[in-house]
Amino acid sequence: MSSAASFRIEKDLLGTLEVPADAYYGIQTLRAVHNFRLSGVPLSHYPKLVIALAMVKQAAADANQQLGHLSAEKHAAISEACARLIRGEFHDQFVVDMIQGGAGTSTNMNANEVIANVALEAMGKAKGEYKYLHPNNDVNMAQSTNDAYPTAIRLGLLLGHDALLASLESLIQSFAAKGEQFAGVLKMGRTQLQDAVPMTLGQEFKAFATTLGEDLDRLRRLAPELLTEVNLGGTAIGTGINADPRYQQLAVDRLAAISGQPLTPAADLIEATSDMGAFVLFSGMLKRTAVKLSKICNDLRLLSSGPRTGINEINLPPRQPGSSIMPGKVNPVIPEAVNQVAFEVIGNDLALTLAAEGGQLQLNVMEPLIAYKIFDSIRLLQRAMDMLREHCINGITANEEHCRRLMENSIGLITALNPYIGYENATRIAKEALESGRGVLELVREEKLLDESMLADILRPENMIAPRLVPLKA
Amino acid sequence: MSSAASFRIEKDLLGTLEVPADAYYGIQTLRAVHNFRLSGVPLSHYPKLVIALAMVKQAAADANQQLGHLSAEKHAAISEACARLIRGEFHDQFVVDMIQGGAGTSTNMNANEVIANVALEAMGKAKGEYKYLHPNNDVNMAQSTNDAYPTAIRLGLLLGHDALLASLESLIQSFAAKGEQFAGVLKMGRTQLQDAVPMTLGQEFKAFATTLGEDLDRLRRLAPELLTEVNLGGTAIGTGINADPRYQQLAVDRLAAISGQPLTPAADLIEATSDMGAFVLFSGMLKRTAVKLSKICNDLRLLSSGPRTGINEINLPPRQPGSSIMPGKVNPVIPEAVNQVAFEVIGNDLALTLAAEGGQLQLNVMEPLIAYKIFDSIRLLQRAMDMLREHCINGITANEEHCRRLMENSIGLITALNPYIGYENATRIAKEALESGRGVLELVREEKLLDESMLADILRPENMIAPRLVPLKA
Amino acid sequence: MSSAASFRIEKDLLGTLEVPADAYYGIQTLRAVHNFRLSGVPLSHYPKLVIALAMVKQAAADANQQLGHLSAEKHAAISEACARLIRGEFHDQFVVDMIQGGAGTSTNMNANEVIANVALEAMGKAKGEYKYLHPNNDVNMAQSTNDAYPTAIRLGLLLGHDALLASLESLIQSFAAKGEQFAGVLKMGRTQLQDAVPMTLGQEFKAFATTLGEDLDRLRRLAPELLTEVNLGGTAIGTGINADPRYQQLAVDRLAAISGQPLTPAADLIEATSDMGAFVLFSGMLKRTAVKLSKICNDLRLLSSGPRTGINEINLPPRQPGSSIMPGKVNPVIPEAVNQVAFEVIGNDLALTLAAEGGQLQLNVMEPLIAYKIFDSIRLLQRAMDMLREHCINGITANEEHCRRLMENSIGLITALNPYIGYENATRIAKEALESGRGVLELVREEKLLDESMLADILRPENMIAPRLVPLKA
Amino acid sequence: MSSAASFRIEKDLLGTLEVPADAYYGIQTLRAVHNFRLSGVPLSHYPKLVIALAMVKQAAADANQQLGHLSAEKHAAISEACARLIRGEFHDQFVVDMIQGGAGTSTNMNANEVIANVALEAMGKAKGEYKYLHPNNDVNMAQSTNDAYPTAIRLGLLLGHDALLASLESLIQSFAAKGEQFAGVLKMGRTQLQDAVPMTLGQEFKAFATTLGEDLDRLRRLAPELLTEVNLGGTAIGTGINADPRYQQLAVDRLAAISGQPLTPAADLIEATSDMGAFVLFSGMLKRTAVKLSKICNDLRLLSSGPRTGINEINLPPRQPGSSIMPGKVNPVIPEAVNQVAFEVIGNDLALTLAAEGGQLQLNVMEPLIAYKIFDSIRLLQRAMDMLREHCINGITANEEHCRRLMENSIGLITALNPYIGYENATRIAKEALESGRGVLELVREEKLLDESMLADILRPENMIAPRLVPLKA
Repeated sequence: MSSAASFRIEKDLLGTLEVPADAYYGIQTLRAVHNFRLSGVPLSHYPKLVIALAMVKQAAADANQQLGHLSAEKHAAISEACARLIRGEFHDQFVVDMIQGGAGTSTNMNANEVIANVALEAMGKAKGEYKYLHPNNDVNMAQSTNDAYPTAIRLGLLLGHDALLASLESLIQSFAAKGEQFAGVLKMGRTQLQDAVPMTLGQEFKAFATTLGEDLDRLRRLAPELLTEVNLGGTAIGTGINADPRYQQLAVDRLAAISGQPLTPAADLIEATSDMGAFVLFSGMLKRTAVKLSKICNDLRLLSSGPRTGINEINLPPRQPGSSIMPGKVNPVIPEAVNQVAFEVIGNDLALTLAAEGGQLQLNVMEPLIAYKIFDSIRLLQRAMDMLREHCINGITANEEHCRRLMENSIGLITALNPYIGYENATRIAKEALESGRGVLELVREEKLLDESMLADILRPENMIAPRLVPLKA
Repeated sequence: MSSAASFRIEKDLLGTLEVPADAYYGIQTLRAVHNFRLSGVPLSHYPKLVIALAMVKQAAADANQQLGHLSAEKHAAISEACARLIRGEFHDQFVVDMIQGGAGTSTNMNANEVIANVALEAMGKAKGEYKYLHPNNDVNMAQSTNDAYPTAIRLGLLLGHDALLASLESLIQSFAAKGEQFAGVLKMGRTQLQDAVPMTLGQEFKAFATTLGEDLDRLRRLAPELLTEVNLGGTAIGTGINADPRYQQLAVDRLAAISGQPLTPAADLIEATSDMGAFVLFSGMLKRTAVKLSKICNDLRLLSSGPRTGINEINLPPRQPGSSIMPGKVNPVIPEAVNQVAFEVIGNDLALTLAAEGGQLQLNVMEPLIAYKIFDSIRLLQRAMDMLREHCINGITANEEHCRRLMENSIGLITALNPYIGYENATRIAKEALESGRGVLELVREEKLLDESMLADILRPENMIAPRLVPLKA
Repeated sequence: MSSAASFRIEKDLLGTLEVPADAYYGIQTLRAVHNFRLSGVPLSHYPKLVIALAMVKQAAADANQQLGHLSAEKHAAISEACARLIRGEFHDQFVVDMIQGGAGTSTNMNANEVIANVALEAMGKAKGEYKYLHPNNDVNMAQSTNDAYPTAIRLGLLLGHDALLASLESLIQSFAAKGEQFAGVLKMGRTQLQDAVPMTLGQEFKAFATTLGEDLDRLRRLAPELLTEVNLGGTAIGTGINADPRYQQLAVDRLAAISGQPLTPAADLIEATSDMGAFVLFSGMLKRTAVKLSKICNDLRLLSSGPRTGINEINLPPRQPGSSIMPGKVNPVIPEAVNQVAFEVIGNDLALTLAAEGGQLQLNVMEPLIAYKIFDSIRLLQRAMDMLREHCINGITANEEHCRRLMENSIGLITALNPYIGYENATRIAKEALESGRGVLELVREEKLLDESMLADILRPENMIAPRLVPLKA
Repeated sequence: MSSAASFRIEKDLLGTLEVPADAYYGIQTLRAVHNFRLSGVPLSHYPKLVIALAMVKQAAADANQQLGHLSAEKHAAISEACARLIRGEFHDQFVVDMIQGGAGTSTNMNANEVIANVALEAMGKAKGEYKYLHPNNDVNMAQSTNDAYPTAIRLGLLLGHDALLASLESLIQSFAAKGEQFAGVLKMGRTQLQDAVPMTLGQEFKAFATTLGEDLDRLRRLAPELLTEVNLGGTAIGTGINADPRYQQLAVDRLAAISGQPLTPAADLIEATSDMGAFVLFSGMLKRTAVKLSKICNDLRLLSSGPRTGINEINLPPRQPGSSIMPGKVNPVIPEAVNQVAFEVIGNDLALTLAAEGGQLQLNVMEPLIAYKIFDSIRLLQRAMDMLREHCINGITANEEHCRRLMENSIGLITALNPYIGYENATRIAKEALESGRGVLELVREEKLLDESMLADILRPENMIAPRLVPLKA
């Protein structure tokens, strides 16, 4: 009795299993849960993927009804179930591990079963009464995992893309604002960690905005280029076997309408069924952004090093005490965390690359790992960029006096005097400064190589940080 | 009032925060939770790491008491708290993200705060009354994150090592058992996916056992070689500043006793504080095991390919229906999932390598990612090996007749006849067989190149699958 | 005397060295040769890079002359030297190792010195008489390594791009031709290495053409998007210090004219000086092509496996004897070599990624490795594609009868009958076929589930390999 | 006529080819040269591999003669040829590309053919007169590529191992010497790039020696553990088909004697034929050394940054002028080159890992890439270590005064005063110092918190850089 209350019996090709009575998923989902106890990360961890699956099922149901293969009653029930999933209900029912065998069959069946059971309840039936509405025959009608699943992955990525772009754009604006704020802070530029020539701290932060801006442009363009062509309608291997010839176009059109994404049917469905190239390049692009963020955070940590025995040109906002044993120590914890996220994204890109290379013949069975890694990279990058902006960049301040002092004291300043005092003088003075520990300006003044007004003119910030015509000698 | 009931106020160098009243962690943990919303994987995901942290705190407390720096009362309270953590209580209080800035400070403080508050309650005090027992001054006494944290990571790995070895050993036994079971199944060996020479299916499975057996040996030896030398006592940078000269040896001895692991103090504490070499090599070894598992699973998928248009020498136990659109299809889902785990482990190794390379001067701030990736790889490998054994290897059956038919029909059989009929005859017959589609034995018989008893002798399984003396020609 | 004949003495900031008398390179090149004995791969290994360096020097000389900083005589001599380098002379003088410290300074100086000495001879002077024409003051005028070198790398990649595209396009055409040739070869498609549903071998090869065609499109677009924006004119760190404000536009315009490439000045020169993003994405794209080639070659090796105990649907042209011990064995050596090239390209992408991440502040000193790895990947891919086309794809033949027999014998054929005999019948017959070893068509005929004309209609190739309307039941 | 003079005709299973008359290699080598124009790196690039191949051939010939299968005359001729190869002659005849299909068959045949032709000349025959001595039947007797080639790779690595260890050991001694030289140079240690607590520059350099010393120990032990077990005698797939049962032990014993390496026969030859685990772990170990070298070089570049706007604690010896546009600039070119070598080695490890994962069934056809990458990593590391020692470490000098000034001026010094003035005082003074820009000692003196003798005692170098008993308050 109590067992009857807590379980229902479901059946598939391999036999029967007891499914928890309150579960909306069914026997095939349960088998996958038993089979794959691996990452511990369930599908529900990535809501956009769940929503995309529901949209694919809705689009297929619409096409099937229109073609006369699905009754109005079943279509209505499936539609209500999909709508609820799209609104965020029942996501906790997506329990299969992100790492799974079967090329996504378990993910697809998880969606089919949850939708079927939600729909059955809407029809006044009990969960599991599949004779009234069947996960495979009805919800999965005219689909194979091999077309529905890759389509849902692409759509899921597109659905989350605006949020990724927004986080990136906000970070860019934050860097750009600092670029303006620090436009007047003169400092030494460094190449190969050696003193080079003057620049402004504003130029340095503006360059961070510029480099990420290039990624914003590219990501904005790349997503539609790579992800909008879907293989829905290809069924098992892309030949569209057993599918109505009108189905592909109808289903893709419906999916575009439902999702608001400019989806189009893939031209070569055989190729599209097994090809993972879009994900490889998209992940490669995420890797590029990760590399840039890592480089920027390395710079932030260098520039804020010290406070006394490092470069100390900028101050990062303190976020947490740095040490119990060392009073007053505050560490650059936010950039450090971004570095680690970047390394994770680079590792994800490798795992995804290996999975892509592992495809064989008409399918890539490693697609679940590909989906996992790409959704993971996106989420990590987005969170890391939000963290970096809020908890670090917005609060950065400049040590303007220190920057100027370092510059004025630098031997590299001699480069700006080069065109005026000549290369020989410059080299001699550079050498003397290095050996004596004295300043180059001091030496130039001592030798009266340039008068004060000329020196002041050369060293005016706007004259040192951009190309300029060499003025006639006074 | 209700706010007073649900929160307590805690204070640190940066100010105050409201800590949930029932939380055993404190303000610094809370700051880290606010700072690092990244992977979504909390410390509690890896219980061995939590237990190892508690053991380190216990060992330090013992040493500090013995040296007269910690009162008996405080020591007793800390000890009770550590004991409860080691038993598995309060693990849900380890809430900081595995990816974090600060080189593990937040992990260390999470441990310090939870232990302090559990201890305070044992002393009859309220959580947060740190004047009676302080997370830093008492629980963290004589420690820095920079020695306590790496020590805990090493210990955590050691604590989980036997379970990893046990999973690997069980898998080896499973392969070895199949090796015996299939000892009489004669089949063709293949090199470069081309028919080569005969062997037994048992030899093939025994080789899987052998190759993993080498990893078992190596992992068993590598863990003590790499992980038992700990830098506890080095404090901030390995100089042991502000530590009692007797502390290091005492603390490490206590930790060895508490954990039952043969821990020893690192000889060069400066080096040991920043060096990540042990983790790089350990992860490299895990990567090797992953590569082997992936190769084996590739083989299992090849050998079970078909059933009609592939190799079909073995049958993997069906674990879940393979397709709704294709009746009767069953897929090798378990090996497929292992392949993906292997790719993940290889990706983890890369992320860890990048983190190790990112160390600077006296510390490696990327250590949290290193810990995360290595614990993740171990857990994934262990689960994948258990899954592979239970759900796949133990249930494999051989298609003995098919194996034999393939072998007898193979042109590669000619190699075994080579020493008896000569290279010229062999080449001519091989060519004729390939072009005509006929069997080499049939052709040899037709040409009467060997009499039946001789042929039977040569083709006796035990004669083809091992070196043998060439018998005198009859 | 003889020493005077075989060496000349050159001098730089660090002192003097004996330079071989017949060398066109000078002291700084020689220092680099002494410093960096690493990969053993000299700059001359990549002629497009050498040519691009000469073009940059020519463009700078043109701009400098036009601005009145370089005399007509010197300009003429430099121009003649650059023209000779562009024609392919003196490439053997580019002797510095591709792996070098100094962020490319040695490469830049190698070019400056060779051009200066060739120009000096044209002026009737001896090599090394730099008072008449100086490597730094004249050839390198208004340039820094930090702008000239990255500009040359980009240009070098652009110069070689058409050849890469041509190799890729030829390979695509080769696959497409096979797609047409095999359009009538009916075979089983396979998913997860298990028998799936029918397709044609032509569809399979056409899909190879399609997937590479996508890479051709993308590579064609990506190169101009990523590589035409150059930082020439930024001098040391992108501020253009000491440069004439008119110089940047002039120099880039000249370089575009000389090279025939649509080069434009970078908008943010500070950013452009240190940013390696273009190379990271370009290499990521090359990695994608490598992954696709590897997957295709894996498929070719699977499809040609056997001849008797594998799939054996196609024959690769024999290229070399496979084994002395196994008569008649021929191996798929060409695809195997392509796989290895793909792995090398993936490894190169990682090395390049690490180098990109290693940039600091105003420069990326790891740029020489980035250049090396990207030129290496391109050359390897191009050679591998040419090899694959010539030595493998063009000569592939199909075992048409075997393909058809495998298909007709396959249980997967039942899927095509599904809509006509119903899912229950299909499942029952599939199971019976698997257990009995009989064919599904045989069983269907035996049970008279479909009449012969219907069966013939369903199994007509054109009906199985594309979507079709389900005909009304007879 | 002239054609007859410049070519000889050779023949194999696929037909005939014209082999250059002076070539010692033969038709199969030539086919491989035509097939594989890929990396441009010929076998001769790695002399130890060539020597190892010759030793394997010698050992096999010895065993075959002893078993009565090879005549004394042939044995003598083969022996002379092998001896000449081992002495370094004829290496230029090893012309096949390191990247090749065929699992090493072309490498093996290159050796067989060169040895045969050298031996033929020794016998007074012409090159190509294989009826007197045959590359396959005689030189390759009782061998398959699948056992001879992996055995030669292992042996080649062992033959070069002492030189690698010697370079590493010299580098360690160089660091250790600097550790002693700088034992008295007091400086600030840094964690997370932030000022931490005092240490000596000597401790820092000694830690470099220690960390590399661990790799020396491990590499010394790993090579024999991983590489001495060889599969010679396994023939095609490890079953030893067609081999004399006594052959394996005899051949391996001979090879051990000839090479002076403690080689032993693999226990499971089936496993040993396809297993690449030893190379994966060995490369993983090389990767670890690369990571350590990269971290050390990052540190050297940080510590020598400046000279005015960086840390500037040490001076690297200048190796080449750094910039024409910036007078007096000298860059850390040697460590920069080491970083790039490290990235290359990490990339090599990935390519090798992919190749190891790509093995299938009884063989790993990607073995040529594995050999290439591991030999390349070793050579690069060895050269990089020699370069680093000679051109950088040995010439490093310390800026002792600057180190001391930075330390004395650092707020981190307060940590050493902590036990004497209390945590509250320490925190207050740290904060005041940071805000006012004043020194902590100055403030402590001003407040008379400690008398001068006490202060002098605490700040005595030997008291700050190691654990010490807290002295009783005066």
